[in-house]
Amino acid sequence: MKTNRLEAFSDGVIAIIITIMVLELKVPHEPTLAALKPLGPQVLSYALSFIYLGIYWNNHHHMFQVSHRVSGGVLWANLHLLFWLSLIPFATAWVDENHLASVPTALYGVTLLMCAISYSILVRTLIGLHGKESVLARAIGDDRKGWLSIGCYIVGIALSCWRPWAGSAAYVIVAMIWLIPDRRIENTIRRDERSRISPSPALSHPNGEGGAA
Amino acid sequence: MKTNRLEAFSDGVIAIIITIMVLELKVPHEPTLAALKPLGPQVLSYALSFIYLGIYWNNHHHMFQVSHRVSGGVLWANLHLLFWLSLIPFATAWVDENHLASVPTALYGVTLLMCAISYSILVRTLIGLHGKESVLARAIGDDRKGWLSIGCYIVGIALSCWRPWAGSAAYVIVAMIWLIPDRRIENTIRRDERSRISPSPALSHPNGEGGAA
Amino acid sequence: MKTNRLEAFSDGVIAIIITIMVLELKVPHEPTLAALKPLGPQVLSYALSFIYLGIYWNNHHHMFQVSHRVSGGVLWANLHLLFWLSLIPFATAWVDENHLASVPTALYGVTLLMCAISYSILVRTLIGLHGKESVLARAIGDDRKGWLSIGCYIVGIALSCWRPWAGSAAYVIVAMIWLIPDRRIENTIRRDERSRISPSPALSHPNGEGGAA
Amino acid sequence: MKTNRLEAFSDGVIAIIITIMVLELKVPHEPTLAALKPLGPQVLSYALSFIYLGIYWNNHHHMFQVSHRVSGGVLWANLHLLFWLSLIPFATAWVDENHLASVPTALYGVTLLMCAISYSILVRTLIGLHGKESVLARAIGDDRKGWLSIGCYIVGIALSCWRPWAGSAAYVIVAMIWLIPDRRIENTIRRDERSRISPSPALSHPNGEGGAA
Repeated sequence: MKTNRLEAFSDGVIAIIITIMVLELKVPHEPTLAALKPLGPQVLSYALSFIYLGIYWNNHHHMFQVSHRVSGGVLWANLHLLFWLSLIPFATAWVDENHLASVPTALYGVTLLMCAISYSILVRTLIGLHGKESVLARAIGDDRKGWLSIGCYIVGIALSCWRPWAGSAAYVIVAMIWLIPDRRIENTIRRDERSRISPSPALSHPNGEGGAA
Repeated sequence: MKTNRLEAFSDGVIAIIITIMVLELKVPHEPTLAALKPLGPQVLSYALSFIYLGIYWNNHHHMFQVSHRVSGGVLWANLHLLFWLSLIPFATAWVDENHLASVPTALYGVTLLMCAISYSILVRTLIGLHGKESVLARAIGDDRKGWLSIGCYIVGIALSCWRPWAGSAAYVIVAMIWLIPDRRIENTIRRDERSRISPSPALSHPNGEGGAA
Repeated sequence: MKTNRLEAFSDGVIAIIITIMVLELKVPHEPTLAALKPLGPQVLSYALSFIYLGIYWNNHHHMFQVSHRVSGGVLWANLHLLFWLSLIPFATAWVDENHLASVPTALYGVTLLMCAISYSILVRTLIGLHGKESVLARAIGDDRKGWLSIGCYIVGIALSCWRPWAGSAAYVIVAMIWLIPDRRIENTIRRDERSRISPSPALSHPNGEGGAA
Repeated sequence: MKTNRLEAFSDGVIAIIITIMVLELKVPHEPTLAALKPLGPQVLSYALSFIYLGIYWNNHHHMFQVSHRVSGGVLWANLHLLFWLSLIPFATAWVDENHLASVPTALYGVTLLMCAISYSILVRTLIGLHGKESVLARAIGDDRKGWLSIGCYIVGIALSCWRPWAGSAAYVIVAMIWLIPDRRIENTIRRDERSRISPSPALSHPNGEGGAA
């Protein structure tokens, strides 16, 4: 099975999720700047969720650049990811409605955590299909960034119960970690192409495999 | 006529249907776990409808992998399927609004039944176009799973009038039957490729055709 | 410029228009069949609008099968068509809200009329780009069906002011005219392929060009 | 990295943004022409926003016709543009709600200004990737139209505080400037193809490069 239709479907779902969040921005009745002010935090949380969905789309895009086949399992792992992503607008709206209260902020973190876990499952399923020697497997490596994010989410959820702003800060930090596009895949592709040209990369670059990571 | 644009359009419609259901999840006003509790059954029914739409997308995807042409009739059979799928969010919302009352639960089953029937019509139209010897026709075979589902839906609708939870259980069972991706098509493709390589499959695998199904 | 991205964008917009109409179906509060009854006409008008959008998508699909280039003018003619199509959900909702009153039914017809006119403009723009000898120009011919529809819409709008049900009947008749997929394009493609094989179609089929239309 | 998936995702997001604005058109309760009248300005502002989004899609389409690669930076510059575009429905709804009051009209201009700036950033990022000698860089040139628009938006925002209708006029003028499809890219492609055929364009057309712009 080819990947193009899975990509098109995921693009569609993520595009809709990212856009319906704007429907939550309720137009104020007064035509004044003062009436716009309470929307400030709401726009910020919209921006954060937008960035998160952008990160997932970005990584999804990179991942399927080096995946050439999908199986039934991959289709379901992908739908599972889309399910959790689709709950982000709901979690965002609840945080907005309650001005960063404890429970909604923690729930926002739980949603992000479930997205991260389901993304991990998708990655593992794809690696299982493509083999441990595939470009994908080498690009992901030990998935340090993935594990770090999951840790940060758990810390963020715990912090939210105590000080919601501290929890939010944890989520912002994870977004910043990922905002830098995932060069692992780009680098591995490039390395792969290079090694095809020079047949003995091990001789010219003794630590070529792990050095640039 | 090629299939790519029909696939893109169907992907778009299913992506939208699967996502707008989240708009039905009304954000609770209180920022407490207690306020979140009544949403539990709603999230469950959202998950069930999400899985159903995922199953349809999945099977649609598999079916068009082995369909290489479309006709005007196929376009309309496909739109007919999309029409019934588009009513799933409405049926889901009505079940949620009334906490699994009899009539809404039965209507949910009727919607699923109409989706199954329209899917069957689409399959028949495609087989009519590709011929009884096509990979598609052989993969579908006598469509046991399709008929079983239709039977289950009818039982579920009847049960809903008596005990709504029993009706819902029937719908969950059908979802579980289909959650296992439809290997018939994958197997038939594989068998087909195998038989192209070894010109006399009948000799080497006496029961090759029906054995692995 | 190639047509694929214009097609993808149009598919997206039509998919969204066709699906957001379901959001207008308000879930009844009572879990009874009686509560569902008032929704009957609404579902019917949803079905009619769904069929209309399906017809437009279908014809759009056929038309771009034989169009190989787009210009800036085509992009705008296409956006113009999408603008009027996007007003169909609004017109449908107004008819529903007022149980087939005169003004809403007439406005529904005006929206359909504007869709038909903008579709005509798109066809003319494409023919202008591809030339009078193109497959597209020959398939459209004198566009009898297009002109007939425009006439029917005008009659329907006039009838709506007098008897709304008569106006609606006119719109249903136009839908039925188009429901039969537009074989002109399919036939012209086939004829075109035939004539490429036999170099002198005029000899073997004296009236080949116009006879089968 | 190829551009096709970035294009598909952008198409999806723009298609949704352009369509959800219709959801803001609230159906009037009375079935009379008089009840429809207050919707007049709302339909006009919907049309203006539709045209703006059409312009962005159009230019995006042209720009990626001559862009053959994307980088992580381009993905984010593109998401940044989509973020500001997604706020257009909100700004449009606020203008409508308040019948062209000062602050909402100014905010509409600010949103358009941010879209223009983020589009500029995307163009620069793409030129940085493709080089100053690329077809894209030559087609954009000194980007006179881009700078003119940004100037007009700033004037429009200032005017809105004084006379909202004058501000709106400025936005309409920018739309009209862009409605004429961006022939720079089409011309540069054509010139490029011509120069490939005749190897010494400088001899036959002394000012060929800059003359037709």
